[in-house]
Amino acid sequence: MKITTMPWVLALCLCLLLPFGSSANAAGKSTKNHVYEWKLAESWPEDLPIFGGAVDKLIKYSHELSGGRLKIMTYPKEHHGKAFGVLEMVRSQQFEMGHTASYYWKDKDINTLFFTTLPLGMIAPERYAWFYHGGGLELMQKAYEDHRVLAFPGGNTGNQMGGWFNREIKSLDDLKGLRMRVPGLAGEVMKELGVRTVNLPAGNLLDALESGTLDALEWVGPSLDLGMGFHRTARFYYTGWHEPGTELQFVVNRAAYNKLPEDLQNVLKAAMRLAAYDTYIESYHASIENLAVMQREYPNIQIRAFPTDVMRALRKETLKQLQTIADTGSPLTREILTSLQDYQRKARVWTRISDQAYLNNTGL
Amino acid sequence: MKITTMPWVLALCLCLLLPFGSSANAAGKSTKNHVYEWKLAESWPEDLPIFGGAVDKLIKYSHELSGGRLKIMTYPKEHHGKAFGVLEMVRSQQFEMGHTASYYWKDKDINTLFFTTLPLGMIAPERYAWFYHGGGLELMQKAYEDHRVLAFPGGNTGNQMGGWFNREIKSLDDLKGLRMRVPGLAGEVMKELGVRTVNLPAGNLLDALESGTLDALEWVGPSLDLGMGFHRTARFYYTGWHEPGTELQFVVNRAAYNKLPEDLQNVLKAAMRLAAYDTYIESYHASIENLAVMQREYPNIQIRAFPTDVMRALRKETLKQLQTIADTGSPLTREILTSLQDYQRKARVWTRISDQAYLNNTGL
Repeated sequence: MKITTMPWVLALCLCLLLPFGSSANAAGKSTKNHVYEWKLAESWPEDLPIFGGAVDKLIKYSHELSGGRLKIMTYPKEHHGKAFGVLEMVRSQQFEMGHTASYYWKDKDINTLFFTTLPLGMIAPERYAWFYHGGGLELMQKAYEDHRVLAFPGGNTGNQMGGWFNREIKSLDDLKGLRMRVPGLAGEVMKELGVRTVNLPAGNLLDALESGTLDALEWVGPSLDLGMGFHRTARFYYTGWHEPGTELQFVVNRAAYNKLPEDLQNVLKAAMRLAAYDTYIESYHASIENLAVMQREYPNIQIRAFPTDVMRALRKETLKQLQTIADTGSPLTREILTSLQDYQRKARVWTRISDQAYLNNTGL
Repeated sequence: MKITTMPWVLALCLCLLLPFGSSANAAGKSTKNHVYEWKLAESWPEDLPIFGGAVDKLIKYSHELSGGRLKIMTYPKEHHGKAFGVLEMVRSQQFEMGHTASYYWKDKDINTLFFTTLPLGMIAPERYAWFYHGGGLELMQKAYEDHRVLAFPGGNTGNQMGGWFNREIKSLDDLKGLRMRVPGLAGEVMKELGVRTVNLPAGNLLDALESGTLDALEWVGPSLDLGMGFHRTARFYYTGWHEPGTELQFVVNRAAYNKLPEDLQNVLKAAMRLAAYDTYIESYHASIENLAVMQREYPNIQIRAFPTDVMRALRKETLKQLQTIADTGSPLTREILTSLQDYQRKARVWTRISDQAYLNNTGL
């Protein structure tokens, strides 16, 4: 007897020492002691605040909630060199997932444009409500179906500022000939208003603004602008119109996702959702703190809103361009745009009598 | 050899069949197959929308993320009969946790007042930023230390409306003698402005408003007001001032929490945090939808903001009452209030130039 019981005890001890135990999943396949090692490609460089923080949060939550069974390793831009290749690298399973911004792929597939932000679009809580209760998340899956990825909210920057300007914009005329860094759809809108849009690498922007090569530029908001140093040279900081609630995206290779056991799919979904919300709040806080620093160190910064004629022209041109996108797009393009615009119209009625009315009525 | 290897295999099989595997936690105690069954007491009745939804989300996330090892059963008010006894029942471990609103305990312990909302206080994203980055969460633990519970954000209602009024408030004089249901600190402020505050059970409110026993009442906002039916009788719906971003609370018995293995503590914390954010967004959506329903069915509802003299008086009286609370409170009372007010002042500078400026500048 003695000689046969010993191995039982040893085997049991061995089991107890396995890092996270063992069991059979519903499909009868043992998965409980399998560690899934995933690689994530970021569209951003290593040291980018807030954006990189979203990925750190995802990694931490995935690790904690899976008992170490879902291990995500991140590869910022320096490692793969393709900020705008993230979707393709995730599609081809070079990476299981990515952290990026959906609107980067608009030239490849216009249907991906709408999930990050739109000029004159929704603010963060409106956009989250659309994603989670207004059909947005489902439409995002439809848009990404052919790209073989699933897409999820990846953190909101909050309302982005309209940009740093070396001179004041008093009317529409002041935009004529203005050399400004403003990419994307907003850039196309501003071009129609007479702005000469310029594209420069991030590292050259401050110099260009200082030397007058650029008259103006938009970046994000105090959360990221402080580190860029624009406040040390530009005098005017304009409030936003073009990215009112920019939501980043996690994209996940569908085949890789389907290989995860159900419990780890739930962990991944919860970790992404929590990282996204947390990033919105961290970004809000960083803007609060950094704006205070800017104003303390450079008390002469003038914060301005664009005058009414500029806002009217921006709205008119934005609507025109969205109409062209709808007219030249697929039925899905129109379905997404209609869903967004209908939801925004309804949502804004509430926002106007809740937070906006409160803020206006307590600004005495 | 053969006779001794068999038991190894059997032992290994046995291990694989354990429902969630076995392992040793840091303290060396096997916990991986133990199911923790927790009871949660709600301050709300069974059918209350949004509030009850926060608990449903908590239960779902806890279950999914723990592989069924953290099972939370909920007991709405009907089961224990003590809406305002939740803190005491959690303290005494009759329930491991509760879902409630911190400001219910202000008469028992003034330091608990500040964590739900304050008249003329922070809107939801400002408040979350304070909780998670401005020291709010740590101060909440300090305030609850003697009550032997941990406290966490439990879902935000968003900006609450100022209430339903049978007649228009054109100036401060119109508040004199007005019979209004408005509890808490806001009620005390309005009393000083001449309002006769009345308290009635929820079930009697609609009748009282219809019959004229009440001239006005505040409840939450469209998310919950629609179901109460106030819009069918009152003509004026006033925008908010007194609960600009009401955060509910999860309270957790500290001893019960400490008995959870570390991985389930992480699951519980993540589930509460996610349920809270989700509830904010669900509430935002419900207000959007319900406001649209109200306005469609009762197009004569007049939405109004209180006039400037009323807002000035509300602000003056609120600040006076907060000063009295600070003066008569403990050093911790003053620490919490100072933290809140300093953070709000700084946060509002950002809110004013981001979402508020955007909303104002796009309302052409």
